[in-house]
Amino acid sequence: MRADWIIREQGFDRERIAKNGNKFMIGNGYMGYRGTLEEFTREELTAVTLAGLYDRVGDKWREPVNAPNGLYTVIEYEGVPLGVLSPGASIVEHEQELDISRAVHRRRTVFAVGDGPGAPRVTVWAERFCSAERLSLIAAKVSVRSSADGELVIRTGIDGEVWDINGPHLEGLAGSESEGSLLLSGVTRELKVPVAVAETAVPDYDGPAAWEQTPAAVADQAVATDSLCREIRLTCRAGETYTFYKYAAVVTGLDGAGDASEAALRLSRDAAGCGYEELLQEHAAKWAEKWRRADVVIEGDAEAQLALRYSLYHLLIVAPGHSEKLSIPARGLSGQVYKGAVFWDTEMFMLPFFLYTQPAAARNLMMYRVHTLEGARRKAAEYGYEGAFYAWESQETGDDACTLFNVNDVFTGRPMRTYFRDKQIHISADVACGIWQYYEFTGDGSILLEGGAEAMWECARFFYSYAYFNPAKQRYELLDVTGPDEYHERVNNNAFTNAMVKRTLRVALAALEFLQAHDPDQYDSLIKRGAAILPEHIADMHDRLYVPQPDGESRVIEQFDRYFTLEDVSLPELKSRVLHTNEYWGGGNGLATTTQILKQADVVLMLHLFKDQYDLETKRANWEYYEPRTEHGSSLSSCIYALVAADIGSSEWAYPYFMRTATIDLTGESKQYVGDLYIGGTHPAANGGAWMAAVLGFAGLRFDGEIVSIAPSLPPKWEAVEFPLILRGKSFKVRVTLKAVTVEAAESNDDALPFRIGNKHTVLAPGQKLKVEL
Amino acid sequence: MRADWIIREQGFDRERIAKNGNKFMIGNGYMGYRGTLEEFTREELTAVTLAGLYDRVGDKWREPVNAPNGLYTVIEYEGVPLGVLSPGASIVEHEQELDISRAVHRRRTVFAVGDGPGAPRVTVWAERFCSAERLSLIAAKVSVRSSADGELVIRTGIDGEVWDINGPHLEGLAGSESEGSLLLSGVTRELKVPVAVAETAVPDYDGPAAWEQTPAAVADQAVATDSLCREIRLTCRAGETYTFYKYAAVVTGLDGAGDASEAALRLSRDAAGCGYEELLQEHAAKWAEKWRRADVVIEGDAEAQLALRYSLYHLLIVAPGHSEKLSIPARGLSGQVYKGAVFWDTEMFMLPFFLYTQPAAARNLMMYRVHTLEGARRKAAEYGYEGAFYAWESQETGDDACTLFNVNDVFTGRPMRTYFRDKQIHISADVACGIWQYYEFTGDGSILLEGGAEAMWECARFFYSYAYFNPAKQRYELLDVTGPDEYHERVNNNAFTNAMVKRTLRVALAALEFLQAHDPDQYDSLIKRGAAILPEHIADMHDRLYVPQPDGESRVIEQFDRYFTLEDVSLPELKSRVLHTNEYWGGGNGLATTTQILKQADVVLMLHLFKDQYDLETKRANWEYYEPRTEHGSSLSSCIYALVAADIGSSEWAYPYFMRTATIDLTGESKQYVGDLYIGGTHPAANGGAWMAAVLGFAGLRFDGEIVSIAPSLPPKWEAVEFPLILRGKSFKVRVTLKAVTVEAAESNDDALPFRIGNKHTVLAPGQKLKVEL
Repeated sequence: MRADWIIREQGFDRERIAKNGNKFMIGNGYMGYRGTLEEFTREELTAVTLAGLYDRVGDKWREPVNAPNGLYTVIEYEGVPLGVLSPGASIVEHEQELDISRAVHRRRTVFAVGDGPGAPRVTVWAERFCSAERLSLIAAKVSVRSSADGELVIRTGIDGEVWDINGPHLEGLAGSESEGSLLLSGVTRELKVPVAVAETAVPDYDGPAAWEQTPAAVADQAVATDSLCREIRLTCRAGETYTFYKYAAVVTGLDGAGDASEAALRLSRDAAGCGYEELLQEHAAKWAEKWRRADVVIEGDAEAQLALRYSLYHLLIVAPGHSEKLSIPARGLSGQVYKGAVFWDTEMFMLPFFLYTQPAAARNLMMYRVHTLEGARRKAAEYGYEGAFYAWESQETGDDACTLFNVNDVFTGRPMRTYFRDKQIHISADVACGIWQYYEFTGDGSILLEGGAEAMWECARFFYSYAYFNPAKQRYELLDVTGPDEYHERVNNNAFTNAMVKRTLRVALAALEFLQAHDPDQYDSLIKRGAAILPEHIADMHDRLYVPQPDGESRVIEQFDRYFTLEDVSLPELKSRVLHTNEYWGGGNGLATTTQILKQADVVLMLHLFKDQYDLETKRANWEYYEPRTEHGSSLSSCIYALVAADIGSSEWAYPYFMRTATIDLTGESKQYVGDLYIGGTHPAANGGAWMAAVLGFAGLRFDGEIVSIAPSLPPKWEAVEFPLILRGKSFKVRVTLKAVTVEAAESNDDALPFRIGNKHTVLAPGQKLKVEL
Repeated sequence: MRADWIIREQGFDRERIAKNGNKFMIGNGYMGYRGTLEEFTREELTAVTLAGLYDRVGDKWREPVNAPNGLYTVIEYEGVPLGVLSPGASIVEHEQELDISRAVHRRRTVFAVGDGPGAPRVTVWAERFCSAERLSLIAAKVSVRSSADGELVIRTGIDGEVWDINGPHLEGLAGSESEGSLLLSGVTRELKVPVAVAETAVPDYDGPAAWEQTPAAVADQAVATDSLCREIRLTCRAGETYTFYKYAAVVTGLDGAGDASEAALRLSRDAAGCGYEELLQEHAAKWAEKWRRADVVIEGDAEAQLALRYSLYHLLIVAPGHSEKLSIPARGLSGQVYKGAVFWDTEMFMLPFFLYTQPAAARNLMMYRVHTLEGARRKAAEYGYEGAFYAWESQETGDDACTLFNVNDVFTGRPMRTYFRDKQIHISADVACGIWQYYEFTGDGSILLEGGAEAMWECARFFYSYAYFNPAKQRYELLDVTGPDEYHERVNNNAFTNAMVKRTLRVALAALEFLQAHDPDQYDSLIKRGAAILPEHIADMHDRLYVPQPDGESRVIEQFDRYFTLEDVSLPELKSRVLHTNEYWGGGNGLATTTQILKQADVVLMLHLFKDQYDLETKRANWEYYEPRTEHGSSLSSCIYALVAADIGSSEWAYPYFMRTATIDLTGESKQYVGDLYIGGTHPAANGGAWMAAVLGFAGLRFDGEIVSIAPSLPPKWEAVEFPLILRGKSFKVRVTLKAVTVEAAESNDDALPFRIGNKHTVLAPGQKLKVEL
């Protein structure tokens, strides 16, 4: 364990419970386990959030299901419960840490039981991980030692009282015990999906203090219960450490593992049979491999190094490595905030990291969109459009989980109509371009044949049906949309949106051509299905779609039609008009709505995505124009300002934005409320943005599907940055210093790949190493 | 003077001062004089509102200029001022009345001066009129009589301290006196237009109480002053009446009368020379002629008769008979509310009355739009469109006086962005169709040659540049508009708007054809000027413009795209959600915005305007659907529901709506505030609506430019309704009873005109009388 891979906090602060739940969370893509303590329950936001399993209670929002907590444990010493919130025990020492090299969580607390200096000290240690090898498994090691002899009662089992925003989601919860293993299972309310948690606890000590287990009120018979614990009584001796292990397995009806309860019991017992240390070892091996593919080494800036690694950690614990029906929710697996929904965050801010380093995970992310195509078709039809209008907030079916009233007005308490769901049409472009990008990065055309081309084509058809032709100006336009800057809803010709849609039309035609060549039958049936909108229509729209261009004088691109006519107020001035801390700045009457103040990068995001289409002067002019007008009310904003600043060679402008995005989940200082809505949790998009800022920004990496280019602009104190790449199935290692770029192609590569480094063009054959002085 | 032409209130109620200012107002189209008392000043909203003269102070709204009040008079008895608000004199009797047959205002007040039953009683009478013959002139007769001898001081002159919302508007106010006449003059702040008021006071009594005049601090020399009064002292004898006359003339630099001060003095003295009774006689003769052309006689319903006549009275006092550069503001000449601006109210709700009864006034109203074409062009260009986008709030130049922030949010005090100005594009259709209607009704093509055709063509070009073509649906659409129902801003394909625009395109092409035939040079230069949009473009848009049609099942026409998806809440339920009496129901977060509740007739207005295009079933279905969903938050709503109810033969549904529109200014119970904005005043559009409901609705009159049709649906208690008509220069008298329709063509008519009465078609030759039994 290396110290620079450890996140640690000393001392206990009640105020930080919710934040630390995010900060210290672990996960494995199948589930996330919040960084809560063993004795915590619902009130402290304990949650085992399951990826891809959603439920609805009554008419409340659908949201992910949190499984019962198989690690729940409270230890009593001489009748006094040892918990950081227990009144009878005082905290002498407390620390909580996360080993991000292996995704292992630890806590250690020293309690004083009773008053005075002579009061016995009891130390509790606990360690846990969500196995990267066995995705259903959470394993824990718990130890206790007292400074004086005494009676211990360990109450441990499965707690069904977990955090729920709109729950509880499991009905018919029943517990049972057999052969020392506990089982708690129920079914989701809406779709009746079984969810089972089995737990096996195993002692690891000898001596007189025997393991005396008393399951409370359960036997082989299933008994209705919310929680299920056994009590273990033992007499401890001063100075001796008593350890036990817990093997909790979570299985749902979606896992395809047969009967969920049986499978959970089997997995729990198998794990117990294997033993904690071996499980940890296989887990750690997986993590070593993850880091080998993903780690970015920064030399000369320890603070940036830790923040960036911590960001990558968060991407790695939520990446769906095992299923192409999952993507990554906006708050990862840190709970139910934002309905556990997948947003454009994935394609725009996380996908690049996976595309450059883990193509298999990238494929899963994009296949998720293919699998949710029907939901997108339903949404388009609901609004009277053709094709696929992807959900703004997507769950397992692709139907839009986004409501029409998203924020409450803090002044009247009334729900406020917002247009996230209706008008952020760019989501379909983000998806279509994401699929094509996956194909370009990997050369893996199977995604196109397995539904990717169809999804892209449906997005193009959607845009054609959404678009209008301006007869006076003889051009297509995109009206009544909301771009990334959500403070300005329902605008016309948002530059970002129009540019993305134009790209979508182009790549959809290319995908269609691919399909025609490789699967003519599928091509024919696609064309037949949407006969009213044919490739020639899409091509015409592509050629005549209006995309706002830089002003001839100022080079500034107008964010949308008539944006420049809005009040040009300064951000401090606008802030001085705020009447209520949590008031929403957008919507019908929002403070920013009638001004030029934007929520987040919008034109500047376009300059990043279309960086080869704009000259340096244009990028600089727009960065300088929009940057002081940006509130950064979204965590997606900073990384984009960092990227474009690096692109124009201003790494000193970029660096603070990079640090802001890279530390967002370390400091936990992001926006926690919009209106009266809690939006806390982790920020995988900002984490992905940190990777982008470091690698695509400072190191200046770019792959356009054919050529890898590297044009670095390192922050002054960075001596070097080093990272791995996988492009079109070929592996490379890149090292960028202030003076040179070195690229090393793996021996095992099947072919060469062209590179452009600075002004030097070259083709890197397998095993070749190239160093270019800057 | 007939009693059934008198509006009267007895007793004085301080709370009714503002309302009575509206209710008892007089006017002559050149100016309006509010129904205030002689001793009132600024605080009581005294105003002499001038038609067509606007001014702006600082960055406040432009608004009409109120002239100094030439009738200001306070009489003192034994040192005690006799005023309804004076503390020293108590009111024994008070009455205020309006003779609507001649537009003469009267007040009579008996004051007790001092305490006890023996205190002297002093009676003050005053009568006034704005001369219908001499438009600059206001004449008044004031009398006083005391029950005991005593000393009287009459302080009378010109008060510059008149009501102003955003004033004061006159600078450099200076007073002078010469030969017993007073003169107060100044210039407007913005455009420096001279405004002068001259007043001559003449006594009408003999005896020992001599007319002893002491102008206060003025001589021949002009002296800076806000107000200018002389004092007249006389010793009065018990029981004797002392009368004097005031002749006030108002002249502005817009009148083309040379030096305004000189002209005002001359006019005032001329009037004095003529004498009050003769002036009153010539005035009354004019009014007799007005009523001869306009009066609608209702038999069997005295209440309705008075209300309808009172409504017509309000139209007659504001009609611009003398100038084609004036139209009628939304609040008439009752003050500065709504900026004294002209809205669609004129074309849609007032124009029909004038078209059917006073074509010359109708021509002036429409020529006002021709004269303001340049302003409409500037507005279109400001938004990036071609042609003419008429002002939502139009003043003398046609530039839009409407602000972008029209209402204050009562919860935050912040101005609220509204889209009246930007999105109510139907105004250009209302104008274009109004001009064409004038041509159709009169056959007077001069209006087309003198700019009318050009204005219509520019409206059509505007719509073409505003419209979009939907490529997927192969039709033109009108997006992002606000229809009459202002609670739903920025909607797509508002049925009313699309139907009006389609008509506009048709009549603009017809007008262009007329121009080509009668003034080919003007035609050529028009076509050349707007070469990018040619008649074939307009014709194509006309043929392929989408107009929402009745649902196949329910026959209901959707007010705009996706209206039916809005919350279908009942009006009482919505009202129960109100948190603040004056909160605005529309705008970004308004209560009605996300529901199906509408402010005013919208689809139903379309059914009235296009009544020959929809069958009875459709009209009934839509009336029944929309009526319970209409808040009638606009005074323009009731008359339309009355009209369509009468059209479908449901006069019992129509009658309460007719009474509501006809009594609006009698009861004064209309909405007085929107947000924190005062919107009180008279309602000429509702007055015009009352005429429409009675004549076009109950009597079922309709002229389509060729045939006059009459299909009555009288309220049960109406025994008969009788009214005059002038169509294509031919005069008719129509009498409708429950059993028959009688039409009489004037002997002097130049030709016959076809009529369809019930199912009978006939052609009525000059002098012919026709009676059709129903």
